Amino acid sequence: MLDQDIIVAPATALGGAIAVIRLSGKGAIECCDAVFVGRTRLSDAPTHTLHYGRITDNGRIIDDVLAAVFRAPQSYTGEDSVEISIHGSRYIASEIIALLCRHGARPATAGEFSARAFANGKIDLSQAEAIADLIASDSRAAHAMASTQMRGGYSEALGRLRQRLMNAMMLLELELDFSEEDVEFADRTQLCTTLCDTDSLVGSLMHSFATGNAIRSGIRVVIAGEPNVGKSTLLNRLVNDDRAMVSEIAGTTRDTIEEDAVIDGIHFRFIDTAGLRTTDDRLEQMGIDRTQKAIDTARIVIRVVEPSAKAIEPMPLSKDCREIVVVNKTDLSAERNIDDAIYISARENIGIDDLRRALCSAVDTAGLYRGDVVVSNARHYEALARAHNAIARAMTGLDEGISSELVAEELRTATDAIGEITGEITSDEILQSVFSKFCIGK
Amino acid sequence: MLDQDIIVAPATALGGAIAVIRLSGKGAIECCDAVFVGRTRLSDAPTHTLHYGRITDNGRIIDDVLAAVFRAPQSYTGEDSVEISIHGSRYIASEIIALLCRHGARPATAGEFSARAFANGKIDLSQAEAIADLIASDSRAAHAMASTQMRGGYSEALGRLRQRLMNAMMLLELELDFSEEDVEFADRTQLCTTLCDTDSLVGSLMHSFATGNAIRSGIRVVIAGEPNVGKSTLLNRLVNDDRAMVSEIAGTTRDTIEEDAVIDGIHFRFIDTAGLRTTDDRLEQMGIDRTQKAIDTARIVIRVVEPSAKAIEPMPLSKDCREIVVVNKTDLSAERNIDDAIYISARENIGIDDLRRALCSAVDTAGLYRGDVVVSNARHYEALARAHNAIARAMTGLDEGISSELVAEELRTATDAIGEITGEITSDEILQSVFSKFCIGK
Repeated sequence: MLDQDIIVAPATALGGAIAVIRLSGKGAIECCDAVFVGRTRLSDAPTHTLHYGRITDNGRIIDDVLAAVFRAPQSYTGEDSVEISIHGSRYIASEIIALLCRHGARPATAGEFSARAFANGKIDLSQAEAIADLIASDSRAAHAMASTQMRGGYSEALGRLRQRLMNAMMLLELELDFSEEDVEFADRTQLCTTLCDTDSLVGSLMHSFATGNAIRSGIRVVIAGEPNVGKSTLLNRLVNDDRAMVSEIAGTTRDTIEEDAVIDGIHFRFIDTAGLRTTDDRLEQMGIDRTQKAIDTARIVIRVVEPSAKAIEPMPLSKDCREIVVVNKTDLSAERNIDDAIYISARENIGIDDLRRALCSAVDTAGLYRGDVVVSNARHYEALARAHNAIARAMTGLDEGISSELVAEELRTATDAIGEITGEITSDEILQSVFSKFCIGK
Repeated sequence: MLDQDIIVAPATALGGAIAVIRLSGKGAIECCDAVFVGRTRLSDAPTHTLHYGRITDNGRIIDDVLAAVFRAPQSYTGEDSVEISIHGSRYIASEIIALLCRHGARPATAGEFSARAFANGKIDLSQAEAIADLIASDSRAAHAMASTQMRGGYSEALGRLRQRLMNAMMLLELELDFSEEDVEFADRTQLCTTLCDTDSLVGSLMHSFATGNAIRSGIRVVIAGEPNVGKSTLLNRLVNDDRAMVSEIAGTTRDTIEEDAVIDGIHFRFIDTAGLRTTDDRLEQMGIDRTQKAIDTARIVIRVVEPSAKAIEPMPLSKDCREIVVVNKTDLSAERNIDDAIYISARENIGIDDLRRALCSAVDTAGLYRGDVVVSNARHYEALARAHNAIARAMTGLDEGISSELVAEELRTATDAIGEITGEITSDEILQSVFSKFCIGK
């Protein structure tokens, strides 16, 4: 992970007016000079300056560009870096990257720029992950969550937690050093209280993951029901678009269709599905199987029925999944048979705002905007779970009067687990699994 | 078009590690200072320097950014400009743009940055259009075409053409000034030769449009044929992907599916279609209607048939459309009934390279890589057509001995038409129609 060779990748998405190609490593500025023709040699340029010129390959002009020079350690990675603003064509970007690679650079792997920033002490591990989340944030809720984490509030909270566990552990270890004298430095009642408090903090962090994870990746809302109850019309209405093909023919939707919408700062992903019914049509049955798979991963299921429906047959849903019953086509019938349902007409845009409000209140965002620490990362959740189990074992151990050595061992497991979140405790394996989830160019 | 107020828009696509927001106009640097908190005030910064800081809104931190300062006239637009590198989230971009708009900027309209670059004399009109084409270029052929145009080779060729017409016109106008003396400054035979040569240059530019236009927008290749001859399998094979759903059930493809692939530097857009047959199924008939529409806009139609087919029924195709007959499923049968067909097995990847070669040779790219001037823009084609008609009328007029005044008038029409291409002759209407086709941020 501590390589300093020159890596290159697009740092922006391609397809806009301009795109930026990022180059970092020992000799990155000289590498760029080999293909850059401008008034100034980049190697002679001070840090944080911009230079107009052309990228050429043996006389063939590839593009007119602006090169930004960053000198170590004043760059994102902490290394010498160049960011080249090019015309935003995919073709030009790939030609320039290939050219730089012929002059000593190599394509960056996923997350390699951030991995170097971490290795050079510019950011900790949870901050690196927060940067990835911030980039992916597409709603106020996701942005608030990632911002708190990137600015270090999250790392500080975890640091305090870890410090408390380390203090307790050190007291126990001190006892071991003086074990022949049979003293107890650590007051057992006090220790139990500390561990109990700490565990409850760990528990509440773990609890925040259900919301944090859903907010981060978009809350999956499956629109389900029998054929021809108006599911596709409802999807189009919720996303204000004509995304799904609609007709009065039952079974028009064959494959699942996914579409995103942000409602009141929360990102929802709506999934329209093939209508559930018994069928001999093989393609339709393939669609129905996909519907069931979508329901299995949903956090909210909107059950759509017609006004004539008398009761809702229960559907097997996962523990964290909420069901919202919606009676559609109220423009065609005034029947109201189901309590607690939301009555709408997707076609006539009646009751859709009620449904939007119900969707938002199914998601717990209180605290998020106050800067509360929310866990949104499965890796962190898994580390917290390991810490929680170790603390629980330590408390049982204290209760049962087992040796300080074994209790200290459990607390070591817990502090290490928490240290893994911010990267104070780390291994190549952890780093690789973190950064490989990043996009190339980050 | 000569407004100097502050405009703002994303200059890159969103969704990468970083994105760039561009701000230009009188006071753009001060406007950015109102929301930027860093070590340096941007207003105090020299041109072409980069500054790290935070964008904040009443204390709420929106993002950590890098601001690049450009002072007039050393910027793309020729005005004071700031380019802000942000974390590439759509949400953050829209928050920052909204914030800047509350501090005196306004959202840029499509192409407004380039329109200002044109108004400030940084680029001519055909160069502005070439920049848009360069950005959109996704193949070696499209890049070569746009590059030649952006670097001014195109403008020079048109300038020479226009100058010849103007010389002829001025001679005729000189005669009018001395009309009482009844002299002929312009040798009529010489004049005819000049006009004839010029017209043939205009004609060859017009002729290049068929290829130029197709290369620019991707060459539309429709895959057509009866149900179940393997059209979707062929599409997947040509684009090296599992884009289209395939099954052995005839009529699996319902809607048209479009997918791009670059072959030997040329961008093709392949369009898979519903199989053509008589049907009572309404959804299938909708699909077949779409197939016909796709064929109407195709430049190449790949007619797919089975080995058992004895003859190809002719299909009504537009004048510029080429047909390539492909016999698929040669792995299942050795029958060879059709001359000039390409024999393939899409499933077994047999003969696909032959088909790729046939596709490439159906497109005339000779000259393109030598830097020949190729017309790729419908506006230019239309202006050339007007010039061509006017020159033709002038030549007829000379032939029939009509007055120098009327001939000069036609030549004026022709020079103006050519001047419109580079923007030497322009109107608000032309400018608006050119720049409104640009993306926002260009």
